Amino acid sequence: MRAARFYDRKDIRIEDIPEPQLLPGTVAIDVAWCGICGTDLHEYLEGPIFVPPTGHPHPISGESAPVTMGHEFSGTITALGEGVDDLSIGQNVVVEPYIIADDVDTSPGQSYQLSKDMNFIGLGGRGGGLAEKIVVQRRWVHPIGDIPLDQAALIEPLSVAHHAVTRSGAQAGQVAIVGGAGPIGLLTAAVLKAQGMRVYVSELSEARKAMALSTGVADEVLDPREVDVAEAVRERTDGTGADVGFECSSAPVVLDMLLDATRPGGVIVNVSIWGHKPEVDMPKLVLKEIDLRGTIGYSGDHPATIALAESGRIDLSSFITARIGLDELIPGGFDELIDNNEQHVKIIVDPRA
Amino acid sequence: MRAARFYDRKDIRIEDIPEPQLLPGTVAIDVAWCGICGTDLHEYLEGPIFVPPTGHPHPISGESAPVTMGHEFSGTITALGEGVDDLSIGQNVVVEPYIIADDVDTSPGQSYQLSKDMNFIGLGGRGGGLAEKIVVQRRWVHPIGDIPLDQAALIEPLSVAHHAVTRSGAQAGQVAIVGGAGPIGLLTAAVLKAQGMRVYVSELSEARKAMALSTGVADEVLDPREVDVAEAVRERTDGTGADVGFECSSAPVVLDMLLDATRPGGVIVNVSIWGHKPEVDMPKLVLKEIDLRGTIGYSGDHPATIALAESGRIDLSSFITARIGLDELIPGGFDELIDNNEQHVKIIVDPRA
Repeated sequence: MRAARFYDRKDIRIEDIPEPQLLPGTVAIDVAWCGICGTDLHEYLEGPIFVPPTGHPHPISGESAPVTMGHEFSGTITALGEGVDDLSIGQNVVVEPYIIADDVDTSPGQSYQLSKDMNFIGLGGRGGGLAEKIVVQRRWVHPIGDIPLDQAALIEPLSVAHHAVTRSGAQAGQVAIVGGAGPIGLLTAAVLKAQGMRVYVSELSEARKAMALSTGVADEVLDPREVDVAEAVRERTDGTGADVGFECSSAPVVLDMLLDATRPGGVIVNVSIWGHKPEVDMPKLVLKEIDLRGTIGYSGDHPATIALAESGRIDLSSFITARIGLDELIPGGFDELIDNNEQHVKIIVDPRA
Repeated sequence: MRAARFYDRKDIRIEDIPEPQLLPGTVAIDVAWCGICGTDLHEYLEGPIFVPPTGHPHPISGESAPVTMGHEFSGTITALGEGVDDLSIGQNVVVEPYIIADDVDTSPGQSYQLSKDMNFIGLGGRGGGLAEKIVVQRRWVHPIGDIPLDQAALIEPLSVAHHAVTRSGAQAGQVAIVGGAGPIGLLTAAVLKAQGMRVYVSELSEARKAMALSTGVADEVLDPREVDVAEAVRERTDGTGADVGFECSSAPVVLDMLLDATRPGGVIVNVSIWGHKPEVDMPKLVLKEIDLRGTIGYSGDHPATIALAESGRIDLSSFITARIGLDELIPGGFDELIDNNEQHVKIIVDPRA
C-alpha cells in the first residue's frame, strides 16, 4: 500500500510498504481522509521532534524513522481482530492516535495522556493516517455515526480544543478571549461558542480574521494593530476582563496580552506548543491570582467531541480549505502550508487518490 | 506618639506624629509587636513600590509618602468606635492589613484581595504597626485568644502561607516541594506540615537549611549543589514527582526545578514577588499539564490561620530570630537584614521600646 513516510527533516517520501497485520484486539481501517497538522509541519521543517530518530527506537512502539505520518484521520472498518466484538465491519470511525503503554489505565477520568513516554500514532510509529490502511488497538477506535468522513478528519484537532476548554473550567455564559486564530485557535473558539460562551478572538492576519468571522466562532475579532486588545476586552466586560483565556499562538506578546485581558482570579489555558522558554509576566500572574494551565492532547474527550460535531453546533466543513491526494502531499500540502499558511485552516488528504 | 515613617528610598525616619483618631466603626489598638517583612526591605532598598510616592496619593487612602510603615503586627484593643459591639477593650488582636474600597464585599468566600487599587496598611497609608498606636476598621480586626503577642506578629505572613497552600488545593498525605526557605518558604512549609503533607524543601543557604530542619517544617532539605532536586523528589515519590510545588525564591532556576519536580497534572503556586518577567519552561508546563497559580495576600484566611497557631501544630516562636526597639529599626532591623539576611527569619519590633 502507499504511505507517506518521514525519513528526516525535509525528507518525507511517498512509497509502497507492506499492509499492516490484523492482530487480536485490533481493528483494521481503510483510511478515508487525513488532515495535516501543525505538528506534522514542524516535523517536516525542524524535526525529528516527536518522531524517534533513526536508530533511537521509541520505548513503547519500538520504531524509529522512517515512520508513516498522519494522526488526524477518519476511515471505515474492514476487519476486526480476535476479541473485538463491539464494532462492526463497514462502520465509520476515527482514531484517538495515542501510543501509550499497554498497562496504562485509559478508562474515562484517567489522565492517560500524561503517562510516561506517551507519543502519537503517525509520529512515533504504529502506522499513520497518511497511508491507505492502518491497524490500531480497539481502545483507540471511536465510531462517528453520521458525521461525513471528510469532516471527521477534524475530530482529532477538535478533541485537542475540547480538552483545552475542559481544562479551563469555562461555563456557558462566561467570556473567553482566544489569542490567535490558526487551526487550533479557531477550533477552540468553535468549542467555546458551541458550549455557550461569549468569544473574542485576537488576530493580526486578514485571512484568519475573516475565517473567525465567516465560521461564526467569534463574536468579535480584535486586531492588536487597531486596538489595545486587553483594554477592549475589559470595556466589553464591565471593566473586569475575560473569565478564561486561551494561548493559541506561541507568541510571548499574546501570552502577555492574555494575562492582561483575563480578569483577576481567571484562568488561562496554554494550548500552543512552545519551542523555547518565553518570558512570562509572572508579576501580573501573581497580583491577579491567574491560573495558567498546560494542556496536551486529550483524554476521554473523543466521545463528547464527536457528539458536539454530530449535534450540528459546530460546522466542521467550514474549516476544510483544501483536499488533495497523497501524491500531492509535499507540493499541495506541506509547501502550500509554508507558502500560504494564513489562507488555510485544514488541508485534508485522501491517501487513495 | 513615635512612628517609623517612609519618606523615600533609604529614608525611613523615627519621629513623633499625632495619635490616630477613633472614628465610628473603627478600633483603637496599642501595638505590641510588629515584624519586618521582605516587602518593607524592598521599599527601603528600591522603593517606593507599594508606597504611594509623595504627591501621588493612593486612590483609596488618599495618602502618599511619608507614610507609617509596618503591616505584620499584634496589639491590644484600647477603645472601640461607635457601632463596634462585638469586641472588647483589653482584647488581644491582629490586623488583616488591607486598604480596600469601602464598597468591596469582604465577607468569607470573596476574593477581595483582588479588588481594584488594593494596598496594605503600613505601606499605602492608614498608619502602620511600626508605631505605638493604630486605628483600623472593625472588619480587619481578628481576636487571637491565648496566642502570645510576640508570636501573633507572625500571623500576617503565616496567613500569606495559608492562602498559598489553600490555592494549591493540597490535601493531607500529599507530597509538597517548597523552593526556597526564606521567611515565606519556611512558613509555607510550616502550614503544609501542620496540614499533614510530606514536605521537601530546596535551599542552598546553610543557615536556612538548618532552620528548615530545626523548626521541623521540612521532612528533608535538598541542596541543589549536592543533588538534582527534581530527580531526588521523583526518587522519593515512586518516580512520579511532588503533587504540589511552591515558588518562594523569585529565582528562575527554582521555578524551572519546580516544573521538573512536580508530577504531571500537579499544581505549582507562585508565592514569591517577581521584579521582572522571568523565562518560564512553558514546554514543560504544557507537556505535563501543570497548573501554575498566582497567589497574593490572603482573603478570609486569618481565622483559620489563627486557629492553626492556637492548635500548637505550628510553633511560631521558633521563627523569631531577633527582638528590637523602634530606635534600633534601621541598624538592628533593615541593615541587619541586609548584612545577615540568611541568619534571620523574622525580626520583630516593639514600638514602645
